[in-house]
Amino acid sequence: MTKLADLLSTLFDRRYGRSGVGDVSQGPIGDLTAELMGAKGEITGLTVARAILDRYAGFSDDEKLAFFRHLASDMTLDPGRVRAALDTYEAGETKASYAAVMMAAEPRRQELIRRLNQIPGATGALVKMRADLLRLGKHEDALMALDLDFRHLFASWFNRGFLVLRPVNWESPAHILDRIIAYEAVHAISSWADLRRRVEPRDRRCFAFFHPAMPDEPLIFVEVALTRGIPGSVQTLLAQDREVLSEEQADTAVFYSISNCQAGLASISFGNSLIKQVVADLSIEFPDLATFVTLSPIPGFARWTETLELPGPPEEDDVLRALAARYLVEAKRPDGQPLDPVARFHLGNGASVHQIHAGADTSPKGRAQSFGTMVNYLYDTSRVSQNHERFAASQDVAMSADVRNLASAAEKAIA
Amino acid sequence: MTKLADLLSTLFDRRYGRSGVGDVSQGPIGDLTAELMGAKGEITGLTVARAILDRYAGFSDDEKLAFFRHLASDMTLDPGRVRAALDTYEAGETKASYAAVMMAAEPRRQELIRRLNQIPGATGALVKMRADLLRLGKHEDALMALDLDFRHLFASWFNRGFLVLRPVNWESPAHILDRIIAYEAVHAISSWADLRRRVEPRDRRCFAFFHPAMPDEPLIFVEVALTRGIPGSVQTLLAQDREVLSEEQADTAVFYSISNCQAGLASISFGNSLIKQVVADLSIEFPDLATFVTLSPIPGFARWTETLELPGPPEEDDVLRALAARYLVEAKRPDGQPLDPVARFHLGNGASVHQIHAGADTSPKGRAQSFGTMVNYLYDTSRVSQNHERFAASQDVAMSADVRNLASAAEKAIA
Amino acid sequence: MTKLADLLSTLFDRRYGRSGVGDVSQGPIGDLTAELMGAKGEITGLTVARAILDRYAGFSDDEKLAFFRHLASDMTLDPGRVRAALDTYEAGETKASYAAVMMAAEPRRQELIRRLNQIPGATGALVKMRADLLRLGKHEDALMALDLDFRHLFASWFNRGFLVLRPVNWESPAHILDRIIAYEAVHAISSWADLRRRVEPRDRRCFAFFHPAMPDEPLIFVEVALTRGIPGSVQTLLAQDREVLSEEQADTAVFYSISNCQAGLASISFGNSLIKQVVADLSIEFPDLATFVTLSPIPGFARWTETLELPGPPEEDDVLRALAARYLVEAKRPDGQPLDPVARFHLGNGASVHQIHAGADTSPKGRAQSFGTMVNYLYDTSRVSQNHERFAASQDVAMSADVRNLASAAEKAIA
Amino acid sequence: MTKLADLLSTLFDRRYGRSGVGDVSQGPIGDLTAELMGAKGEITGLTVARAILDRYAGFSDDEKLAFFRHLASDMTLDPGRVRAALDTYEAGETKASYAAVMMAAEPRRQELIRRLNQIPGATGALVKMRADLLRLGKHEDALMALDLDFRHLFASWFNRGFLVLRPVNWESPAHILDRIIAYEAVHAISSWADLRRRVEPRDRRCFAFFHPAMPDEPLIFVEVALTRGIPGSVQTLLAQDREVLSEEQADTAVFYSISNCQAGLASISFGNSLIKQVVADLSIEFPDLATFVTLSPIPGFARWTETLELPGPPEEDDVLRALAARYLVEAKRPDGQPLDPVARFHLGNGASVHQIHAGADTSPKGRAQSFGTMVNYLYDTSRVSQNHERFAASQDVAMSADVRNLASAAEKAIA
Repeated sequence: MTKLADLLSTLFDRRYGRSGVGDVSQGPIGDLTAELMGAKGEITGLTVARAILDRYAGFSDDEKLAFFRHLASDMTLDPGRVRAALDTYEAGETKASYAAVMMAAEPRRQELIRRLNQIPGATGALVKMRADLLRLGKHEDALMALDLDFRHLFASWFNRGFLVLRPVNWESPAHILDRIIAYEAVHAISSWADLRRRVEPRDRRCFAFFHPAMPDEPLIFVEVALTRGIPGSVQTLLAQDREVLSEEQADTAVFYSISNCQAGLASISFGNSLIKQVVADLSIEFPDLATFVTLSPIPGFARWTETLELPGPPEEDDVLRALAARYLVEAKRPDGQPLDPVARFHLGNGASVHQIHAGADTSPKGRAQSFGTMVNYLYDTSRVSQNHERFAASQDVAMSADVRNLASAAEKAIA
Repeated sequence: MTKLADLLSTLFDRRYGRSGVGDVSQGPIGDLTAELMGAKGEITGLTVARAILDRYAGFSDDEKLAFFRHLASDMTLDPGRVRAALDTYEAGETKASYAAVMMAAEPRRQELIRRLNQIPGATGALVKMRADLLRLGKHEDALMALDLDFRHLFASWFNRGFLVLRPVNWESPAHILDRIIAYEAVHAISSWADLRRRVEPRDRRCFAFFHPAMPDEPLIFVEVALTRGIPGSVQTLLAQDREVLSEEQADTAVFYSISNCQAGLASISFGNSLIKQVVADLSIEFPDLATFVTLSPIPGFARWTETLELPGPPEEDDVLRALAARYLVEAKRPDGQPLDPVARFHLGNGASVHQIHAGADTSPKGRAQSFGTMVNYLYDTSRVSQNHERFAASQDVAMSADVRNLASAAEKAIA
Repeated sequence: MTKLADLLSTLFDRRYGRSGVGDVSQGPIGDLTAELMGAKGEITGLTVARAILDRYAGFSDDEKLAFFRHLASDMTLDPGRVRAALDTYEAGETKASYAAVMMAAEPRRQELIRRLNQIPGATGALVKMRADLLRLGKHEDALMALDLDFRHLFASWFNRGFLVLRPVNWESPAHILDRIIAYEAVHAISSWADLRRRVEPRDRRCFAFFHPAMPDEPLIFVEVALTRGIPGSVQTLLAQDREVLSEEQADTAVFYSISNCQAGLASISFGNSLIKQVVADLSIEFPDLATFVTLSPIPGFARWTETLELPGPPEEDDVLRALAARYLVEAKRPDGQPLDPVARFHLGNGASVHQIHAGADTSPKGRAQSFGTMVNYLYDTSRVSQNHERFAASQDVAMSADVRNLASAAEKAIA
Repeated sequence: MTKLADLLSTLFDRRYGRSGVGDVSQGPIGDLTAELMGAKGEITGLTVARAILDRYAGFSDDEKLAFFRHLASDMTLDPGRVRAALDTYEAGETKASYAAVMMAAEPRRQELIRRLNQIPGATGALVKMRADLLRLGKHEDALMALDLDFRHLFASWFNRGFLVLRPVNWESPAHILDRIIAYEAVHAISSWADLRRRVEPRDRRCFAFFHPAMPDEPLIFVEVALTRGIPGSVQTLLAQDREVLSEEQADTAVFYSISNCQAGLASISFGNSLIKQVVADLSIEFPDLATFVTLSPIPGFARWTETLELPGPPEEDDVLRALAARYLVEAKRPDGQPLDPVARFHLGNGASVHQIHAGADTSPKGRAQSFGTMVNYLYDTSRVSQNHERFAASQDVAMSADVRNLASAAEKAIA
């Protein structure tokens, strides 16, 4: 791929690198962006796009910031131009006047990003570029506005219809598995042996979304355990010496870890699609699976209890479970959404709060964030749409009778 | 794929098809587009998107027009909303005010098309939809404005970086070859035997661009003959009994046919990229190839001679070649571009007019459009950039000394 | 592949082609076989093996015969050597004495054939070589003995465990489909359009066995129609304007054509495995399929009726069906096996004679060989083993009550 | 695969497991082998073969030995039968009498092994079976004779023409890499990080032979370093912090580790083919590579010095190199072959002894077996054939002038 791209440059654009004018390896980067956007861009596009991405790859953070500010200030929206185009359009709604509005209303940096994307491998480089932008620019409104353009394009490029769901298992390429280890964000994978226990046994599955232009990079992945009954402990689930189930024995699929892989794809949502797709895939492969649940952390639980003025840290299992139930179903942000981010995600997808377990995550992280409690969200396929609608309309949280009772008990306890 | 999509619908959206409200198989299509754009769209999106595409697939032309007019009138730009957003933005350039402008300035039908694209196979269906739009709507400005939104999205989705170049040969899947037969637009392929002669011998090549979301549909393809010397007759090139060259014997690659496959991708340009990429590919595979030329039709030549007030139809080879040279290098549109569409394409890519042949296409079509004359455009990799720039800047047509002499001769002849 | 093989030769065996001694492009072929079997064979094996196969490929039939006779006379069994080895072995059964018997008892041409097989593509060339041998040598006992060595090796190389079952459909490579057209031996495929009707619709399937060393060559294939009920006419089955069934509508799989592709693999049986495997595959894909039958020709029927001294050619449907039933279940070869070759194959596999249809194959070939009658053999998976055992033990022919009645009726008719 | 095989058994052989007679899960294994060899074998073969392999997989070593002895005694050669067939053959050399000799001279266990090989995955199981046989039977002549039958069949099945050379790199499936770690026999791979350093950098390569019927099991692999100049230390080659070369910088390919993977394929030689093939592959990919050498251990060197009655262990580098040279070129087995097994392999392939390095393998194993010395064998493609022939004919060892001088120096030193 790279060899071919090199050849393309060499073959068609030999002048670059010779003459001062077109030397793409130095000079102001603004000259290159101008060149890419200009009339010659069409024919020398690959060379210039490559030069910009190559230069960017060697930039320090300061240089990156300068580049982003260049895009933010020199290639942004021109309100006057938009107004002028709107005037013409309102005077006569023709194809041409419509085109003029569209052209004026789209900041030129969007076209720049599209042109950068022409060369092989550019998509991944642009996703990394946005990760830099989010990291470096988060306190500058102009850069966050620039980010909206990246996000707008990425939402189009990473449209669900372009993504490919692939199983990840012990027969997957090592460089993909290497990234799974690196990207696991919920229950860290400590070694290749640990990874193997999660992807090789017949009662363990892992699925990831990929984009065809970034075939070596998972975008998001979910780890699944096939179990008999709903499990209440992640350590049990991941135990080294556990017994492996046959396909006939399993009646439940447990989504015990979902990790986004690309910082540069923040706010481009795939999680909902991934779960639905995996539920469908598993239903075809294992027609006997009756229950689809998560085994999820409750990351904001411990911090929330600090607001309760309890006599001391809650320690009894019953109290913990009751408080956790109350936290999940009652604690809200000012906008009425659940305080817990994981709850927001799954309830927004149409899941319900199904069971709460004490002593379910005994890792230091699990103890610190939620005194070791975890929760199962249930994906009952016959209720997902209805749950979602009610939650969207009136923020009604769907829950099991058991959880409802726990939450009531907590109410008394606190009161 | 379809099986999985069916299951997804069945699993998660069982209510559809039961209750009156959500029945997606009938009722006004506008209700469905509204549903897809609404709050529930996120979770039931696949089902509703699929329903819209399924309904569309069964539409008559009248119903298609009605659907397009619905998009054109109900989901178009709202200038007032854009102005209001611009007011706020100019009062304070924040991320939020920028986002509001972007949101207001993008017609809602763009988001609709993106959401339709979420289901497997949708991309191809949307390309077909645009082909319908171009066919049915070409005389309605509002529909041509709608087309600009399709085109805008397609330019992003079919970005060069997302396309895959694949060789097409006798080991390619039959359903792909079947489409090559159907889409060949320059020198019709009369049978599978004819196709085989073009893709199987070691001195014949064919390459096509594909998009990952439409793996069964070539987007554009080029047919190449490896020859010894520059050929001057397409019938000789395609002769049944010709001698096949070994790889060592060939010194020239001849692009003798380039066909766009998808009416729905009109104005989304890949041709330039395709030729450059194929030149690079062939250069790697056959380091001894020294010359890259086309053997191209001159579609507007005969019609142009009618404007010359010649005593009779030109019949002598020398006269024909001289007139063709003059036509190619001198005949211009009002905007200064070459009158001949094929010349516009190759000269715009940086090729030069290299040789002109009489008696080069003796088919009825060849005789009718150009008295049988054809032309070689030369892709000299060391001059392509320079040619392109001069052509872009001042419409200078690059040509060989031979062609220059021919054109001069014609001048005298006509005068 | 070829390029690499060339390079291998060039790299390691440059002396060949230079010196007289080792020139592999001319001289007696016996020198080459001697060289391949000699001490140097190990290191120069690829070059010499390739030279022999290349020389062979250019041979006339007479030269081929000479080559076969060389193998038959110069590299055959040496009974004296076997006896001597047996003497030693019986005097002391050691590893060495056993090895000596094995070595002596295997004609050296077997090792020659194995050594020829070392180069890429050799397997297919050797299969073609055996086809030549069967064609040219069938009246020479020494050559038929040589054939037993080919057959012995091929039975080992084409062991069921090494074969791969692959579906053949409209997405298969054209060069594979091209061979399907060429190899169809039962109901000729008249064109690519005819082929397409047999492999593209969702209620038509085709499966072939392949060997990894001959990936471009099907070994045997079967064409299957999914139908509602058991069909009684092949023309109806293959009609251009027939209605395509959905997967839910089909309850029957009809094996209507089985063709061996490689003359050089005669007597290496795959047919039985192929049908069993396809039944298993289809049972997984379509759990509702209840019936697996063939729609088979009755090739020897017409000729057999000539032995009956009937008053005239049978013409009425009832008479034809009765006579055909009798022919299939009663007419035997001297060794007790069914006279009809297709019946031998399917009854030997454990199928039963299920239904007989008049007017089922109205093609000239069908009329000529069986007055248009055809037969369904039933593969009832619960009876296949039992049927096979009874047939193997006592040549009992399994049949339906209907066929039994027909055969009885015929008895009366003839009597 | 397994699912399909299960279904095949279930579909066609339901009676097994029900009735006492055919129950394949218990009873004497001899009944099963008899059944597989009998008339029914053809139709129920897959079921019975599978049963035998399943039973075998659960056997203790004692049961395995019993099984092997059953094959050794009950299914071995019958000299009387061979003699009788020879008598008939000599009385009349017909196809039938030849077939009878072949049938009689092949022990029936060969056919048994071929029939076991019919089921998916059987080839790998049979390779493991032979590994057991070699381990358990090495002191029983009858079992070693049985092994000759395995070996005979495996030589045919694992013919060079059936093997596939595949690169192994960081994009290879993890389960393949896992086996590479396990099978590395020369310089142990200590971790996945160590493995990664050997297969990921652009100046490191690994190639393995695979058989299509055992796609998950490498048969033999070689690790290659691309270097500038010939390296004299394996620790330097494998250092964590070494600088990675670009493709242009490398002029030498170093084969620094070759490992056979399958104990059950002992004496089935692929090593010679592997090196030749990899040399050819690398020559195509890197036309600038000028030198192909090994960096090889000298496993028998230290032990050999013990026979020299030296005053003490040799410690000086010059002395070590001289002694090693002498050992490699002079020390012979009684049959005249080099004493050192690695030397035997490479000299037999046509390589020459090129350079000797002291301090080249400072690992405990390296120090113990050869005081840390290592040797480069040179594969000079223009001399490989000639070297091989001389070595085969007169055991002449090819060596560089440098090595010749070292060996002479040693002569003096010892004397």
